[in-house]
Order: sequence, then C-alpha cells, then structure tokens
Amino acid sequence: MDRPINRRITLAARPQGMVAESCFARDEVPAPSPGEGEALVRTLYLSIDPTIRGWMERDTYLPAIAIGDPVRSGAVAEVVESRNPAYAVGDRVFGMVGWQDYALVDSGAAAMQVLPPGIEPTDALGIYGITGLTAWFGLLDLGQPKQGETVLVSGAAGATGSVVGQLAKIHGCRAVGIAGGPEKCRFVTEDCGFDACIDYKAGDVGRGIAEHCPHGVDVFFDNVGGDILDAALLRINQRARVVLCGAIASYNDAEPPPGPRNLMQLVIQRARMEGFIVLDYLPRFPEAMADLAKHVAEGRIHHRVDVVEGLERAPEALLRLFSGANLGKQLVKVAD
Amino acid sequence: MDRPINRRITLAARPQGMVAESCFARDEVPAPSPGEGEALVRTLYLSIDPTIRGWMERDTYLPAIAIGDPVRSGAVAEVVESRNPAYAVGDRVFGMVGWQDYALVDSGAAAMQVLPPGIEPTDALGIYGITGLTAWFGLLDLGQPKQGETVLVSGAAGATGSVVGQLAKIHGCRAVGIAGGPEKCRFVTEDCGFDACIDYKAGDVGRGIAEHCPHGVDVFFDNVGGDILDAALLRINQRARVVLCGAIASYNDAEPPPGPRNLMQLVIQRARMEGFIVLDYLPRFPEAMADLAKHVAEGRIHHRVDVVEGLERAPEALLRLFSGANLGKQLVKVAD
Repeated sequence: MDRPINRRITLAARPQGMVAESCFARDEVPAPSPGEGEALVRTLYLSIDPTIRGWMERDTYLPAIAIGDPVRSGAVAEVVESRNPAYAVGDRVFGMVGWQDYALVDSGAAAMQVLPPGIEPTDALGIYGITGLTAWFGLLDLGQPKQGETVLVSGAAGATGSVVGQLAKIHGCRAVGIAGGPEKCRFVTEDCGFDACIDYKAGDVGRGIAEHCPHGVDVFFDNVGGDILDAALLRINQRARVVLCGAIASYNDAEPPPGPRNLMQLVIQRARMEGFIVLDYLPRFPEAMADLAKHVAEGRIHHRVDVVEGLERAPEALLRLFSGANLGKQLVKVAD
Repeated sequence: MDRPINRRITLAARPQGMVAESCFARDEVPAPSPGEGEALVRTLYLSIDPTIRGWMERDTYLPAIAIGDPVRSGAVAEVVESRNPAYAVGDRVFGMVGWQDYALVDSGAAAMQVLPPGIEPTDALGIYGITGLTAWFGLLDLGQPKQGETVLVSGAAGATGSVVGQLAKIHGCRAVGIAGGPEKCRFVTEDCGFDACIDYKAGDVGRGIAEHCPHGVDVFFDNVGGDILDAALLRINQRARVVLCGAIASYNDAEPPPGPRNLMQLVIQRARMEGFIVLDYLPRFPEAMADLAKHVAEGRIHHRVDVVEGLERAPEALLRLFSGANLGKQLVKVAD
C-alpha cells in the first residue's frame, strides 16, 4: 500500500553551545501504518519551547532525545487513520509528536488528548498549552501572590511571562515586566496591561527594578536567570518567593555559567527559590485550563502566537527563542 | 559613686574582606548606672557567631553595628545592680549585650531573658542558644526530613551543623556531613554519630557526596555555600529541600562571589532553596529548647563548646570561625 511521505527532522548531534543547523538531520520516510490499537496522526502545529534545547543535550526531567529520533515537541495533530476507538479520523489531538509530518499514537505511552470543542489548535499549544499552564501553576502554586504584592516577571513578553503578569493583575498585584526592546515592552504594558516594563537592553535592570518596584519584589517569576536574577534578588522583600521557571540566558552555554552572587539575600530576607516542572501538575491541568478560559472569555488575558510556516523551518523557529526574535508563543505551522 | 570599669571592644571600621584587628577599637569607660526600670549586668560569656561579620559590615536582617558601638553579640550575663523588679541581683540572664564587661538592660528593647534553672551558661549559648535553635528550626521547619531520607550537612563539625545531623538521625534519616580535616570528621562520625563525613580538604566533595549519599540528597543543610553548595546541587533528589543557613565560605569576601552554577537543578528536580533567620522563631523557642533538652538528657545529642578566655580575645575568637580553628560552639569567657 502506498504510504504518504513522512518528512522528519531528527537529532543528528547534541548541541555544544548554541543550537546550530548541524544538530539536525532531515529525511523522508514512508509514514508508518497503524497496527491494532494505534492511529496515525498528521501534524498541524508544533509547539516550540526553550526546554527542547535541554532535551537535545542531556537527560533532564525527561530522557534526552535519542540521536536519530525526531526532535521531541508538543504538537496539535489530526487523526488520519485509526485502528483505536479512542481516535476518530478527523479528530484533533494534542500531545508529543516530534518534528515530523506523521506519527503513531496509542492509548498508552504514546497517547494524545482530543482537543476539547471550541479550542483552536494554536490556543491548545499557547494559552492552554504548556506555556500558559506553566504561568498558571508557577505563579499561583509556587509564587502564591497576595493582593497588593508586587510580582516581577522576566521574559515578560514571552508566552509564559506575559500570562504570569496578567494573572498577577487579576489577583490584585502590581505586575512589572522585564523584556528586551521597546516593541516587547510596549506589548507587555499596552497589550498585556502590566503596570510597567523594564527594557533590559536600554539601561540598568537593577535601577529599573528599584524604580518600578518601589515597595520591593514579593514574587519574582524568572524565565531568564543570569544577571537579571541577580539584580532581582537585591530587591526581594522578606518572605519573597522566587519562582525558577527557566534560565534561557544560559541554555546555550557549553557549561552552566556562575550563579547569582546575591544568594545570601534568600537568607537575609527569609526567602524561597523554587523550581518546578509543569508536567508534574498533569492531574490539575483541567482546573487551570478552565480558569484560563474564563479569563480569556472575559477579555482579561491577552495572548498571541508567532507562527513560522513550514516544518522545515522548525530549527529556525527554535533559534528565534534564543535570539529573542519571537513575540508571543512560538509555533510552527506544518499543515492546514 | 565609684563605678566599675567597663572594658569595651567597639567597631572602629567596617571590614573590607577578612575581618582584621584594625576593625576594632578598645576603650575603658565607667560602667553606666541603671536608671529607674533598668538593671546593670556583667558579662560572663559571649557567643561568637559568623553572623557578627555581617552585622559589622552592613544592614542585613538587623541594622549594621554603628561605628563606635560595642560589637553586638549574644551573651550570658549576671545581674549586678537592679532598679527593675524583673531582674534580681544574682540572676543569670541571656540576650544581646555586646563585647563589653557591663551593659544596661530594661524590660523593653534592651530586655534579657532569665536563664531557666539548671541551664549552664555555656549551654544557653550553645545547644540551647542561637546555634542549636538554628539547627532545630532550619532542619525541622524548612528541611522537613522524612524517615529514610538522606540529610547532607556542610559545616558538620560546627555548633549548628553537628546538631543538624544528630537531629536527622533522631528523625530516622541517613546523616552525612562535610567538614575540613580528619579531626573534625572524626568528631562528626564518632562523637555525633553521623553515618559518614566527607573531608573537603582531602578530596573531591562531589565524589564524596556520590559515594556517601548513594540514594541522592533529600535535604541539604548548607552553612558554607560556594563550591560545596554547587557540588551538593548536582546530587539533589526530586523535591529536595536546600536549607540556606549561611555561607561562611564567602562572609569575608569583599564582594559576593559568583553563586552556584547548578541552580537549574532546582528546576529539573522541582527542588526548593530557602533561607531563614532563627530570630523569627522567637515565640517557638521554648518548644525547640524543650525538645533539644529531652534529646540531650537521653544522651542522643552530643555537643561541645570551644572556650577562649578573656574579653580581649573576642576578635581572635571571631577569626577562629573563619579559619575553621574552632571545634564546637565558639564562646569567649569574660568573667566567672
């Protein structure tokens, strides 16, 4: 039987330093045929996230991607053949498929979830996807913002950071962002309604924090790490919560850079720094999605996607995250 | 009226880098006379703690010591004159007096607590003092050790670290220490009953942790910071708790050194790093002291003091902490 062609972008070499085109290989193979209990899905959109860089390099909270395997990635796909009653042809599903046109899914380890009615594929990967959920659990579960507190967010124009600040506003906090460049800062304040945004490319971040967080920082939601984390630590209040979401500033360093000099601030301010992995919250995803959907419906959360067209451009889309070129959730559109 | 002579060691200059004799001035003044509601106390023992270095330099969780003031210090003293019914001549009291022979106390900001009967002055500053209480609250409140977990302690031969490991054993954990030199390591394992002690002067700490914490580290109680914190972060388990008690490795650096490179371990392992100041737990001190006293009475907590004789040697005693010369709680005996 003639099988459709499955274009794949696989891991050719582990990155050393910045991700480069040489990390990837491209091939075309026949799409696999679903066995009993399996279905074949066709990728519509890929979710491009900084954590992919980590999966390419080494075991972290998930095993490293094996050399020769398609690059692991969240995605929305459409069921095109099915030998599993859980999947009907035409269903839209989301989960992990990797950088390829076709993948097999089942009801076990390779299961995908059917998209609830009314949810757009791009929203399933953005505001209701890992990035939106990361904002929700990181801020509310670890950050525990209280009315009147100040929430500082780095990477504030990003898919996670922008939602963190808007949730902070909804919870009665002052929301201050840190982002790079006037366009991103405008997005953060004007579109997302943060109280202020500090342009880290335009001046001293520490001074910006002092100016825009006159009562100090109660929650620092950090997507960036490095010098920005250090500057924020100098301004934390007593009992502050530092939510370590990521450290995109250093994901492409060949070895981890030195950490923050001002760690003793955690002692002096009796403060807490905590990391998390959103996948741990899987059983609570419906609760978070329902809350996010309510805020979106009420027009209280603004979100946007940044779509690159074409599977072949997935590596380029990943690099956009590290150069800061993207504005909004980075997606790759693979098929209609 | 002839007043006794009050020898004082005052702050002459803020330390830059290592504490030096030039930071201190010495004078002799007449002891003050208590006004209505005050009492005069005579210092018996001074508690010498690493945190004094911080108070000398800058505002932290307490205001910096003012230039010209006696160096701030915990102490046990004896009431020698009283115009306050809360203090009877002959009472032994503990609290903050500073590096001097005599001080005024009152029932307000300068109050001291009367020593409970049966408590030796040295124990009031050691196992029942700030160092013992720091071990108790830091381990139990922040570290939350569970039976069968591994608790790693840096500065394990110190007045706080040695108690942390013994409390960990009492709570059913594996206790592993890190200390400098064979004498201290022997004290940690043989006298304090830790399961193992890593001599950081004798080899690679990371390898030692891997060897002696074969199931990883669930609680890391850190008194040291620097490279030791970095090495420990590489071995933490999921949901680990890193209790930041201090960072004696860097207290004398002119500026804070770079922090741990392996901070992203907090994300990958969903772990928490938290600082605390034991003075915040003041209302719960009696609970902790009662628990410690029970363990001491049952012979389950071994503790020792390291006494330097003479007020004039207080600066030298402080320096002993940073060179690691002390073994046990560092005290200065000022009077019988």
